[in-house]
Amino acid sequence: MDDLRNSIRRFTEERDWEQFHSPKNLAMALSVEVAEIVEHFQWLTEEQSQNLPPEKLARVREEIGDVTIYLTELAEKLGIDLLEAAKAKLEINSKKYPASLVKGKAAKYTEYR
Amino acid sequence: MDDLRNSIRRFTEERDWEQFHSPKNLAMALSVEVAEIVEHFQWLTEEQSQNLPPEKLARVREEIGDVTIYLTELAEKLGIDLLEAAKAKLEINSKKYPASLVKGKAAKYTEYR
Amino acid sequence: MDDLRNSIRRFTEERDWEQFHSPKNLAMALSVEVAEIVEHFQWLTEEQSQNLPPEKLARVREEIGDVTIYLTELAEKLGIDLLEAAKAKLEINSKKYPASLVKGKAAKYTEYR
Amino acid sequence: MDDLRNSIRRFTEERDWEQFHSPKNLAMALSVEVAEIVEHFQWLTEEQSQNLPPEKLARVREEIGDVTIYLTELAEKLGIDLLEAAKAKLEINSKKYPASLVKGKAAKYTEYR
Repeated sequence: MDDLRNSIRRFTEERDWEQFHSPKNLAMALSVEVAEIVEHFQWLTEEQSQNLPPEKLARVREEIGDVTIYLTELAEKLGIDLLEAAKAKLEINSKKYPASLVKGKAAKYTEYR
Repeated sequence: MDDLRNSIRRFTEERDWEQFHSPKNLAMALSVEVAEIVEHFQWLTEEQSQNLPPEKLARVREEIGDVTIYLTELAEKLGIDLLEAAKAKLEINSKKYPASLVKGKAAKYTEYR
Repeated sequence: MDDLRNSIRRFTEERDWEQFHSPKNLAMALSVEVAEIVEHFQWLTEEQSQNLPPEKLARVREEIGDVTIYLTELAEKLGIDLLEAAKAKLEINSKKYPASLVKGKAAKYTEYR
Repeated sequence: MDDLRNSIRRFTEERDWEQFHSPKNLAMALSVEVAEIVEHFQWLTEEQSQNLPPEKLARVREEIGDVTIYLTELAEKLGIDLLEAAKAKLEINSKKYPASLVKGKAAKYTEYR
């Protein structure tokens, strides 16, 4: 993770792109890259989405790479540790959706969200 | 990262939510959570986005947590290593946008994307 | 449509919100509202999405209202006529995806997009 | 608007694409097309976004066309009248954000959202 952060920083500095990478702009770029993942899945059935052909999987992997890059950069700009933020949020979600109440129920699940 | 993956798996299994978490649905959920980040930035200037008040920053941190959770889960479902995917994509981007060509030029930058 | 455009203009002016409504910001707001539509569908099967219960349908209708508002405002800011733009793009799409080539084939369809 | 709806229906039927166009999938496609609008604005300043060069404007117009097409199709599938939905939501928003309270205040504005 440290490695990745350093590589991203170097990449951005070498291109003098820091000036474009405000948190506002990075949030936009993040949403654009996520849409490129969604694009691969939009006409597939859920089942097909579980069995991507190798070539498509390779392209989804690239989009997931881009999303991870922008997410890492945005978090760093805001002084947020990605993994810590995820763990803390999982704690919150665990209390918000107690297993005893929402277990296996799509309706409940949807409703609770 | 291993820790996080295990915690997410446990969280999902305890709620019997595996059945809803196809890659297709996770891609949708990921896009929804990213939009919740974007929502915090939409009416701010770029400068304001660099200086979030503490309360707003705390909420953005939660959304970044959710995005990281769904991204981690999606990657795992597809057998993709997040950090490896990001590093590999950064390599590709480095060749696609050579520093000598795109350095510090907004116009070029936009055009090259 | 003229009616709607006028009502939106009045709504924005009365609140002195013109200053926040640059095309950049409106594009962000548009993406956030679309995500609120997506949120209603993310855990549903495709079949369930075709048979929304009345209460959920009413909420989706509200989100579709918000999307239409921002889309109309963005188009007006850019001097674009929504319906003309849609018709022109449908022409382009008709040539891009000839019925004879893509008819009823999910694979082809996905590929061609 | 009636014209557009008919043209879209014909376009979809001629390609036998009805089978892919569930509300769930159309919501996804809508979000992908909106992201293509966002992509044009992500690295621009707000000011630049108000003065797009003609070539870029032409491409944004195409993306706005695609968004309008999917939005129209989604609304029709759900039996929702786009313009009515927008007018009804504008009414709701007018009460939710009274001009006297939110006028010209970015902070308030953000907070109220």
